[in-house]
Amino acid sequence: MEELTRTYLESLSLEIAGGQDVQLRERFAELHPADIAEVLDRLENEEVQYIWKLLEEEARGDVLIELEEDVRERLLANLTDREIAEQVLEHIDSDDAADVVGELPEERAQEVIRQLDGEDREDLLTLLQHPEGTAGALMGTELIRVEMDWTVAHAIREMRRQAEEVDTVHSVYVVNSAGQLLGRLSLKRLLLEASSTRSTIGDLFREDDTRTVKVDDPDELVVQMMKKYDLVALPVVDDHNRLLGRITIDDVVDLMEEEAEKDYQLASGLSDDVESDDSLWELTRARLPWLLIGLFGGLAGAYVIGAFEQMDRFSSMALFIPLIAAMGGNVGVQSAAIVVQGLAAGRSPKDARLLPRLVKEFSVALLNGAICAAVILGAGVALGYGWNLSLTVSLALIAVIIFAALFGTFIPLTLDRFKIDPALATGPFITTANDIIGLVIYFGIGVLMAG
Amino acid sequence: MEELTRTYLESLSLEIAGGQDVQLRERFAELHPADIAEVLDRLENEEVQYIWKLLEEEARGDVLIELEEDVRERLLANLTDREIAEQVLEHIDSDDAADVVGELPEERAQEVIRQLDGEDREDLLTLLQHPEGTAGALMGTELIRVEMDWTVAHAIREMRRQAEEVDTVHSVYVVNSAGQLLGRLSLKRLLLEASSTRSTIGDLFREDDTRTVKVDDPDELVVQMMKKYDLVALPVVDDHNRLLGRITIDDVVDLMEEEAEKDYQLASGLSDDVESDDSLWELTRARLPWLLIGLFGGLAGAYVIGAFEQMDRFSSMALFIPLIAAMGGNVGVQSAAIVVQGLAAGRSPKDARLLPRLVKEFSVALLNGAICAAVILGAGVALGYGWNLSLTVSLALIAVIIFAALFGTFIPLTLDRFKIDPALATGPFITTANDIIGLVIYFGIGVLMAG
Repeated sequence: MEELTRTYLESLSLEIAGGQDVQLRERFAELHPADIAEVLDRLENEEVQYIWKLLEEEARGDVLIELEEDVRERLLANLTDREIAEQVLEHIDSDDAADVVGELPEERAQEVIRQLDGEDREDLLTLLQHPEGTAGALMGTELIRVEMDWTVAHAIREMRRQAEEVDTVHSVYVVNSAGQLLGRLSLKRLLLEASSTRSTIGDLFREDDTRTVKVDDPDELVVQMMKKYDLVALPVVDDHNRLLGRITIDDVVDLMEEEAEKDYQLASGLSDDVESDDSLWELTRARLPWLLIGLFGGLAGAYVIGAFEQMDRFSSMALFIPLIAAMGGNVGVQSAAIVVQGLAAGRSPKDARLLPRLVKEFSVALLNGAICAAVILGAGVALGYGWNLSLTVSLALIAVIIFAALFGTFIPLTLDRFKIDPALATGPFITTANDIIGLVIYFGIGVLMAG
Repeated sequence: MEELTRTYLESLSLEIAGGQDVQLRERFAELHPADIAEVLDRLENEEVQYIWKLLEEEARGDVLIELEEDVRERLLANLTDREIAEQVLEHIDSDDAADVVGELPEERAQEVIRQLDGEDREDLLTLLQHPEGTAGALMGTELIRVEMDWTVAHAIREMRRQAEEVDTVHSVYVVNSAGQLLGRLSLKRLLLEASSTRSTIGDLFREDDTRTVKVDDPDELVVQMMKKYDLVALPVVDDHNRLLGRITIDDVVDLMEEEAEKDYQLASGLSDDVESDDSLWELTRARLPWLLIGLFGGLAGAYVIGAFEQMDRFSSMALFIPLIAAMGGNVGVQSAAIVVQGLAAGRSPKDARLLPRLVKEFSVALLNGAICAAVILGAGVALGYGWNLSLTVSLALIAVIIFAALFGTFIPLTLDRFKIDPALATGPFITTANDIIGLVIYFGIGVLMAG
C-alpha cells in the first residue's frame, strides 16, 4: 500500500467521525491485515474500536496479531470473552492464539479459553504449557502429516482435509503409525513423480536429513538452525521423536528482530522496548534506571577525584579528566560489543578459552593505546600543556585503554557463563565502571610522576 | 550436528596431517554444506584447501557460499578460473553466483565469467548490472513459471523440466505470453484441485494480490515487505511488470542481520564488521577512528576546562566533571537510539514533523532531569559537598540532560533527511559532542552561581 501519510489518516478520521461505514468497509476490504494493523496503530482508541466492528470477521484475528502490543491490549480489553474466542482465536494459527492468550491477565485468559470448543481448547492448553524461550512456545500445531503406508490417493484426500486448517503448506510431514517423524515429503516430488495414485507415500518418500528440534530446546537453537540451514519451517518433536508441531520462518524473523533490538537497547541504555510514540512515563521509565547508574558512577568519580584534590598538579590534571573517562568508556564498549555480537551470532565455539581472547584483546589495546598515546603526547606538547602533563596523560591513556579492553571482554564472557544476558555489560554499565577505574589509574600515575 | 569442539577440530587436523582421505570423505559426506563451512572456517588455510578437494563436486559451491568472507577469499585465490566457473558457479543459485563473482577482483571476475557457458553467462552479466542496495542485487533467476493458457498436463511437464534447475520450489508464478506476472499458482491448489489434466492453469488460477517489487526498488523495501506480509519468496518485476526473478527469505534474513549488526556496531564505536577472531590489524582499524574522535573530543574538553581553571571554585567543581560528561553522553545515546530504531523499523510515518518529536523529547528529558537533579542535590548535600556546589551540579545536570536529549534526537533525524545513515549519530560521536557541550554548560552555570 501507499505510504501512510497524515493526509490519509486525516481523511480516515473524518470518515469515522461522519459514520461513513460503506466507504470505510470498502477501504479496508482491499487491505492486507498487516496494512490494516498499521493504520489502526496510528488511530485513537475509539476509532480503533469503530473500525474493528466494520472488518470482515475472518480478517479480524489476523489484524489483531499484527497490532502493536499496547493497541492490541486496549482493544482486547473492550471485547467480551466470547468475542475473543470466536472472532479472534478460532481464525488464527495456534501459536498466535497462544501468544494472544498469554498476553491476557491470568483470570481473563481462563475465561476466554473456556469459550473455545473442545479440540481448540486442548491444543491451546497444551501450547500454553511450554515455557517462554523454548521451541514449544514458538510452535504452532497446524501442519500436514501423512503416514508412510498410505496410498497417494488416500494421502491426497487426507491432505485436502487437513489443508483446510492450514494457511500455507510449508511441508508435508511423513510419520509412522506411532506418530514419529520420518521426514518430509517434497511437494515437488509428489506433484512431479506421482504417476500412479496406487503407489504409496513410502514409494515417494526418500530418507532425508530433515532437521528437527525438541520441544524444550531453547529458542536460540531454533533461530540458529533456521538461519544456518535456510529453513522455512522446522518440525518440533518430543523426546520420542513424535511430531508435535512446526515453527515457521516468520516467527523466527520476528524473534531475531526482537533480540537484535534488545541488544541494541541495552547498548544504548534503554531498559525496555520503547518507541518514540510511547507515553512520557514509559519513555522515562525505560531510561531512568541507566541514568541513575550513571549518576551514582558520577558520585563515585567525584569521590575518587576528591582524594587527589589537594595535589599540587590537580588543576592542570583536571583538564584531561573528560578525555581519560571518555576513552575508557569507548574502549570498554567496543570490546564488550565484539564479544556480545560473537555470542549472539553463535560464532564462538562453546569451549573457547578465556585466556587467548584476553591475550588478543590485550594486543589490540596495546596497539590502539600506543597510537592514541603518541597522538596525545604530540598534541599536548604542541598545545602548550608541557612535557610532564602530556606524558602523564599519555601513559594513563595506554593503561586505561588496556584495562578497559580487558574488562570489556571479561565481563560479558563471565555474564554469559553464568547465563546472564551479556548485552547487559555494554552501554552505561561498562562506561560508568571504566570512568571510575580510569580516574583511579590517571591520578595514580599522576602521583607517581610527581613523586 | 554436534557442537564444534576443540577435540573434534584436533582429531580432524590429525586426519588431514595423516592423509586419511577415506575417513575424511566419509566424515564430510554426512554433513550439510553449512556445517562443512563452519568446520572449514576454523581450519588453517592449507587444511581448507586439502578438504576442498575431497568434497563432492556438487556440494562445493554450497559450502563456499557459507564460508566466512576471508576464508572464501583465500580459497578462491587458490582456484583456477575454470574451477570457479565449473565447480562453484554452475552449482549454485544465480544470486549467490553473482555475490561470489562480485567479491572477486574486477579482472579475475571477467576471466571467470568467460569460462561460463552461454546462458549462465548472460544470466550472471544481467544480475551483476543491478546496483548494490536494490532488489535486483538480491534476486535470483531460478523460479518456476507457467503460462495462463497451458493445460495442467503441459504445465506439469514444464514444471518438471524447470524444477531441475530450482532447489526449493517456493512458488509457481503464472505469467501471460508477454512474460508479465499475473500472480502465483498455489501448489496446494494444483495438488488438491487439479482433478482433470485437461483443465488449464487459468481454471486453477485465482486472482490474488501477489506482492511484487520493482528491480530497482531499494532493498529496505524488500525487507519491510517480506517481514510485514510474512513472505517466503517475493517476485521481482521490471517497469512493465515482466517477471525477472525472485528474492527468497533466507537472503532477507541475512540482510536484516547485517543491518542490525551495522547499527549495533556504529552504536558501539566499531566502524567495520569485526569478529574476535579477525586479525590484530583488522580489529585495530575498526576501532581506532572512533578512539581518535574521542581523543580530539577530550582535547576540546581540556580546552574548555582550561578556560575556567583560574576560577576560585575550580577544584571543587572539577570533582563533578565525570558526572556531567557521563550523563550528557548517556542521555544523548538513549535519545539517538530511539530515533535510529524507529527509522530502521520503518515505524515513523515519513512526514512526521520534527517539532512534536522535540517537544516530547524535551518533556521526557525534563522529567528525567528533575529526578536526577533531586537525587544529586540530596546526595551532594548528604555527602558534605555543600549546598552551593550541589545546587550548581543539579542545575547543570537538568540543563545538560535536556540539551543532550534534544541534540540526540535532532542529529539522527537530520542525518536521515540528508540520506546519511542515522546510526552514525549514536555511539562515540554523540557522546563526545555532549561531553564538550556539557562542560560548557556546567562551568557556565558555575560562573553564574558564583557571580
